[in-house]
Amino acid sequence: MNQAIERIHHSGLHNKIMTAEQAVEFVKDGMLVGVSGFTGAGYPKALPTAIAEHAKTEHAQGKPFAIKLITGASTAPECDGVLAEAKALSFRSPYQSDPTLRAAINKGEVAYTDVHLSHIEQQVRFGFFGEMDIAIIEVVGITEDGKLIPSTSVGVSNQWVKSAKKIIIEVNTLQNPKLETMHDIFVDIGTPPNRRPLLLLNSDDHIGDYYIDCDTDKIAAIVFTHNTDRNSKFTEPDDISKRIAAHIIEFFSNEVKHGRLTENLLPFQSGVGNVANAVLAGLQDSPFSELTGFTEVLQDGMLDLILSGKMQSASATALSFSPEALQRFDDNIDFLRDKIILRPQEITNHPELIRRLGVISINAMIEADIYGNVNSTHIMGTKLMNGIGGSGDFARNAMYTFFVTPSVAKNGAISCLVPMVSHHDHTEHDVMFIVTEQGIADLRGKSPRQRAQLIINNCAHPDYRDALQDYFDRAEKTAQGVHTPHLLGEALSWHQRFVETGDMRVK
Amino acid sequence: MNQAIERIHHSGLHNKIMTAEQAVEFVKDGMLVGVSGFTGAGYPKALPTAIAEHAKTEHAQGKPFAIKLITGASTAPECDGVLAEAKALSFRSPYQSDPTLRAAINKGEVAYTDVHLSHIEQQVRFGFFGEMDIAIIEVVGITEDGKLIPSTSVGVSNQWVKSAKKIIIEVNTLQNPKLETMHDIFVDIGTPPNRRPLLLLNSDDHIGDYYIDCDTDKIAAIVFTHNTDRNSKFTEPDDISKRIAAHIIEFFSNEVKHGRLTENLLPFQSGVGNVANAVLAGLQDSPFSELTGFTEVLQDGMLDLILSGKMQSASATALSFSPEALQRFDDNIDFLRDKIILRPQEITNHPELIRRLGVISINAMIEADIYGNVNSTHIMGTKLMNGIGGSGDFARNAMYTFFVTPSVAKNGAISCLVPMVSHHDHTEHDVMFIVTEQGIADLRGKSPRQRAQLIINNCAHPDYRDALQDYFDRAEKTAQGVHTPHLLGEALSWHQRFVETGDMRVK
Repeated sequence: MNQAIERIHHSGLHNKIMTAEQAVEFVKDGMLVGVSGFTGAGYPKALPTAIAEHAKTEHAQGKPFAIKLITGASTAPECDGVLAEAKALSFRSPYQSDPTLRAAINKGEVAYTDVHLSHIEQQVRFGFFGEMDIAIIEVVGITEDGKLIPSTSVGVSNQWVKSAKKIIIEVNTLQNPKLETMHDIFVDIGTPPNRRPLLLLNSDDHIGDYYIDCDTDKIAAIVFTHNTDRNSKFTEPDDISKRIAAHIIEFFSNEVKHGRLTENLLPFQSGVGNVANAVLAGLQDSPFSELTGFTEVLQDGMLDLILSGKMQSASATALSFSPEALQRFDDNIDFLRDKIILRPQEITNHPELIRRLGVISINAMIEADIYGNVNSTHIMGTKLMNGIGGSGDFARNAMYTFFVTPSVAKNGAISCLVPMVSHHDHTEHDVMFIVTEQGIADLRGKSPRQRAQLIINNCAHPDYRDALQDYFDRAEKTAQGVHTPHLLGEALSWHQRFVETGDMRVK
Repeated sequence: MNQAIERIHHSGLHNKIMTAEQAVEFVKDGMLVGVSGFTGAGYPKALPTAIAEHAKTEHAQGKPFAIKLITGASTAPECDGVLAEAKALSFRSPYQSDPTLRAAINKGEVAYTDVHLSHIEQQVRFGFFGEMDIAIIEVVGITEDGKLIPSTSVGVSNQWVKSAKKIIIEVNTLQNPKLETMHDIFVDIGTPPNRRPLLLLNSDDHIGDYYIDCDTDKIAAIVFTHNTDRNSKFTEPDDISKRIAAHIIEFFSNEVKHGRLTENLLPFQSGVGNVANAVLAGLQDSPFSELTGFTEVLQDGMLDLILSGKMQSASATALSFSPEALQRFDDNIDFLRDKIILRPQEITNHPELIRRLGVISINAMIEADIYGNVNSTHIMGTKLMNGIGGSGDFARNAMYTFFVTPSVAKNGAISCLVPMVSHHDHTEHDVMFIVTEQGIADLRGKSPRQRAQLIINNCAHPDYRDALQDYFDRAEKTAQGVHTPHLLGEALSWHQRFVETGDMRVK
């Protein structure tokens, strides 16, 4: 406890220290609650369980209890998971990836609103969600003058502290205190018509403060925790991922050859997951050098590029490491201090900055169609997987926009290239490159029919290539318009067949 | 001719003057040709016809002749129309609205690539379309030092002059010479990673020069024209449009009441068309004042707001007036001089600026679905109408994003609210308000099912409301996931029925 109290340098706040079970009294049924956390990093670890337990008690007494929850992005089983399990959520935004919560959303029990991650802070600020009653924020510590030291993510913490009427702080004593000064909190973003340009010119520029300003009078409770982040297991790139990565790296070599890129390429944004990690791993042995990162989430792959000297710096809003990578991060934190910058997600994902810097954006997807539309969020058109996250912020504004997927899923029962995607998250206007282990389709400047032939030839799995070609050929012959030929009655039939038979292939 | 020559103050260029028929020799089969022009304003009037005639001659001799054409946005019958009619186009981007060209695209004769209008300049600059062989640019005149004075649109002229290997200038002596100094040409936009912030803080700030810098050595020919712009007829707002406008204006009053907007509202972007014009006409009699415009196209409605003093200033890339409005513009050009600013479309549509200024974006659409996805480009999923234009630039980055349409089309045979849109241009993540004459659906912060009920109740035509509710109810009962319930086999059946029977309604 002494070591814990030392994390709170503002002695006037010591009287706010209490247990999570005590702090939960500030959280009432129907409240709009904002919590910290982004991709399993920096989310509150104690209050969500306490709220879930309180909800169960209330429900047992026949009383209603559910909160509306807004985060930075995904949290973890001990936040989204326990709350969903206790049926303590009525509303959730802007992103999630928890199995229990996902199931509740897909049963229609929780209203989920999928929002571009660069939009959520300003939409709360504009009042689009109503007043935020309470914010629950994980920190590494509190400074003498009451400022908050964020932990492994910044996400929305800065905005929730401003917006919320009351604040509960979780001081996580397991988070490395040396994270202090690795954050860059730009807050003077303003509200239209009084906004100013964001004066960030290079991906590693500092434009804000180390700390989150906080009105300490709003702090209702301070709770100590001593828990790890989600720290998901790292999976070694498999053969499929390595082939996808190889196609992308070969593409970069070609762009360098044609003078459209230098050997330093451009700042990388890399989505979460194995394929993205494989691309970054592939860069390790590439001819490219002095790389930079301007991304949402810094994962194992990018960390290792920095540790090896291949990458000079990376800007992100969250550190989402495997347990082993976290160890490497902690072991090298003094070396990494001036190479990693954690910012609010409104900055990391800001269209102004992504476009200015000319980011290279690489994101995983669920499926693409032959015309280059991408589904990032829905399984068979109706079931939410996770959410759009920052993929739209990056894809729309990047200089190079890649969407990657293995060409098939479920042992070949699903083709990830389909006649028409069952849900549209990124339209034909926003997608430049589709990459599978089969190859790459460079869609830049191509008409819909040109794209279709490229995607069928270069990206589709051989098991599905003939069926896609057949759809395309028949659509060209019979559709009313040949600009984007479709067979309206068949466009979603592959998904329908999978729902009915468990296989997209005609048996 | 003397009066014409006076438009060219750089006497060293007089020897470049020739006829369009002579100038056409610089245009060869297969070339990538960039022309000026945006929404029927400021496009070349002589060369396209000369190219078309040349193409016909070549074709008659059994020789191939087709160019790849990139513009700012739409042109007119004497540009896109004559070229399409002569089968002189193999490729077209980023936007068009010409009936003859549209038919050629939908027959599969011209490859058309639909690009966000803020993206096209940089994609050419990045080399995504290959080298631009020739630019054909309409101007009001040429300064002593060889700079170009744009006419009624800026669009892409500044970039094409830079990118093209050769330039043909059309001096249109019918365009008002007093347009000089009404342009603001910002060109120092740079290429990543060396871009700088755009230091435009208010919609009426000047950040560039009056003229387009031009390497006069690249000028191959100068041609005189004396022709009007497209100057489409103005249609008085009908009852449907007025009702749509009234819903939007009532909405603004409510936002002001809740403190989310002041009585000056925020800079307006208004898409092309009657409904948009009706909204602007509605503002004339509203309680709002000192309005501003930050839009692509300045049409009659916005001009009249400025002339009446209701709007202080407007920034646009093109003046697209009816003949009567053009007369009002010409009559008042000295009054309007410091109130209207014409900029490159890369600036008017720039995500950085749209987001910074907090624009109110109002665009027409073809159809929306019950979950808030919007189709702006395709009739029955396969036939291109015009293109996405700047609607995506604005919708994604605006503070308020409206999509408007009458609830039905074709005398009720088409519902503009459908179970699933037949083409997706703006996804559920980018659409805040759907408005028809029936009412407004405020989708902010709503889950897909909440949106569906609002759209069915507030926006759908009574003739289709029950059918939409029936689809939604059955989808909720039987879909695999209840997050976005769909009946995959029926989602596009309304469109299929229309294609087969000419009516979306079940007979």
